[in-house]
Amino acid sequence: MARTLWIDDDGLPATWDQTLLPFERRIIVLADEAACAHAIATMQVRGAPLIGAVGAWGLALALRERADDAALVDAMERLAATRPTAVNLRWALERVRDAVRALPPLARAAAARAEAIRLCDEDADCNAAIGRHGMALLAPLARSGRPLQLLTHCNAGRLATIDHGTALAPMYALHEAGVPLHVWVDETRPRNQGASLTAWELGERGVPHTVIADNAGGQLMREGRVDAAIVGCDRVAMNGDVANKIGTYLKALAARDNGIPFLVACPISTIDPRAADGAAIPIEERDPAEVATIRGLGPDGRLVEVRLLPPGSPASNPAFDVTPARLIDRLITERGPCAAEPAALARLLGHP
Amino acid sequence: MARTLWIDDDGLPATWDQTLLPFERRIIVLADEAACAHAIATMQVRGAPLIGAVGAWGLALALRERADDAALVDAMERLAATRPTAVNLRWALERVRDAVRALPPLARAAAARAEAIRLCDEDADCNAAIGRHGMALLAPLARSGRPLQLLTHCNAGRLATIDHGTALAPMYALHEAGVPLHVWVDETRPRNQGASLTAWELGERGVPHTVIADNAGGQLMREGRVDAAIVGCDRVAMNGDVANKIGTYLKALAARDNGIPFLVACPISTIDPRAADGAAIPIEERDPAEVATIRGLGPDGRLVEVRLLPPGSPASNPAFDVTPARLIDRLITERGPCAAEPAALARLLGHP
Repeated sequence: MARTLWIDDDGLPATWDQTLLPFERRIIVLADEAACAHAIATMQVRGAPLIGAVGAWGLALALRERADDAALVDAMERLAATRPTAVNLRWALERVRDAVRALPPLARAAAARAEAIRLCDEDADCNAAIGRHGMALLAPLARSGRPLQLLTHCNAGRLATIDHGTALAPMYALHEAGVPLHVWVDETRPRNQGASLTAWELGERGVPHTVIADNAGGQLMREGRVDAAIVGCDRVAMNGDVANKIGTYLKALAARDNGIPFLVACPISTIDPRAADGAAIPIEERDPAEVATIRGLGPDGRLVEVRLLPPGSPASNPAFDVTPARLIDRLITERGPCAAEPAALARLLGHP
Repeated sequence: MARTLWIDDDGLPATWDQTLLPFERRIIVLADEAACAHAIATMQVRGAPLIGAVGAWGLALALRERADDAALVDAMERLAATRPTAVNLRWALERVRDAVRALPPLARAAAARAEAIRLCDEDADCNAAIGRHGMALLAPLARSGRPLQLLTHCNAGRLATIDHGTALAPMYALHEAGVPLHVWVDETRPRNQGASLTAWELGERGVPHTVIADNAGGQLMREGRVDAAIVGCDRVAMNGDVANKIGTYLKALAARDNGIPFLVACPISTIDPRAADGAAIPIEERDPAEVATIRGLGPDGRLVEVRLLPPGSPASNPAFDVTPARLIDRLITERGPCAAEPAALARLLGHP
């Protein structure tokens, strides 16, 4: 199977429409800036690295139409506005802009395209490295007589990145190396990225897995049915606190209570030097409708959204939580494992 | 609002069809044994005390038709078979049988009816007592300047009992006493008893509440937005370990990590003298379809079941977990609070 974002026979970037997964595999060709902007805004693509890559491609495609300074700025701002809170999107756009703005307008489109390709390759390489380092940590944890039992939360997989994923990269590396493994996949309410996206992409690659309610992981750990938990992260503070999808903290508590390693796949780009600790990371409150409703495949084979709450009952939807550094056994970066503590993180950032 | 099971103008027991809640309020009249059996088997009624009460009524109604010894045994076995694993159902049936079998057949129906009514009254009284004891523990936990903030999991409410509920009984007592409170209601996947039943019954009584994903409670506790957590229980072992709806253990861990009291409403009937500790309590594995699908109100206003998982992805569905006694601050019984430890439980059972 190809990368999550690939170049089709016409030389255009293409990807899956993730709003239709896991029930329909529909490829969307990102033929121009508008297609890229639409894909980001409607969440056909999601995951910070993938959003950044599609943004970079959007800017490169925009420059094929007009590439003067004003057009460059305008396209960049239009694309940045599609997901205003996505830090990675603006970073990727600035990177493409910086790669081309010293060039004459006629040379800009080709240079931007080359930069978008480079950015995608770097993401895939970074994740592959996380996969190798994670595999080295995880492989020895298997108990004799059974496959390595891993638990993950949300989707920090190929679908959130260009390839490999972050938390799932070690699983793919293990699977390709022939190490028997089985993954417990947290459903991850309210948006169900585990049940829909993680289950789908593990299934595509033939990695054995089982979906569980978010409530179940603690009991599985108590019963000795989990060898390690591994998750992605949205942001890491300089003391090692980790912000990730809501519910991560509960699994970290259960892992600690049962003596099970809790690992966080952490590209160095997610370490925030301006956040001293988890309290400095704002927790996004998303639309309560995500809790009040859910989407699935109806009896007629069509996607349908159903309401779960009684009329008049409000919902609240904190989208992330902070897992304190003390509960994290290792961060796994593309440069290798790192303790979740200030000195180790400072060393990692200070000595590239 | 009436009890969950009440006697209608024709002298027949009546209740809500809980399979339609929270979207439709449909009353079912339990006119005969068959109606009671159907209500239990199809989960129109659920919750151990309510199932027991409907079973008791079913037997009483059966004896109106035929009341000889053979008929008594037959009806009892037919009713017991509607939910074979419901300990409380068999207990209730045996109680009605024992109340009538020494009587001449002609006197049995009336005596059974009186026993069913007594059994219901006792359940309501037991829960009211739990409500009073719980209120005394909880009221002092409110922080000045805001309503008391409670968190609960699943539905241990009026809908699971004849009245008051167990974990929700203290909430109703506080609300009736004019103590301002607000309840965080865990959705409780996979069967969503929190989002559907707990939210509905709190709403019916005007108790302020907010539904959250099961993943969210830990972060709310970290942010100081929960003053205490209170849940029901399915079974309590003699060392204080508690089996309850899957996910309870994760909330107990989070409560302990944040110094928040974790309370378990525990009718003495749920204490199992034969279970030395939690390891002696079997964990029921339910149908994986409960994880793979969910039911809600579709766009056309009809209840519909939708599929959440990709084809080929299996699911697992452990229905209960065990919360170790060390994480439980207090059991709340109808005789008062009790430490979750062997000596206290032995005292409670030994000295009625």
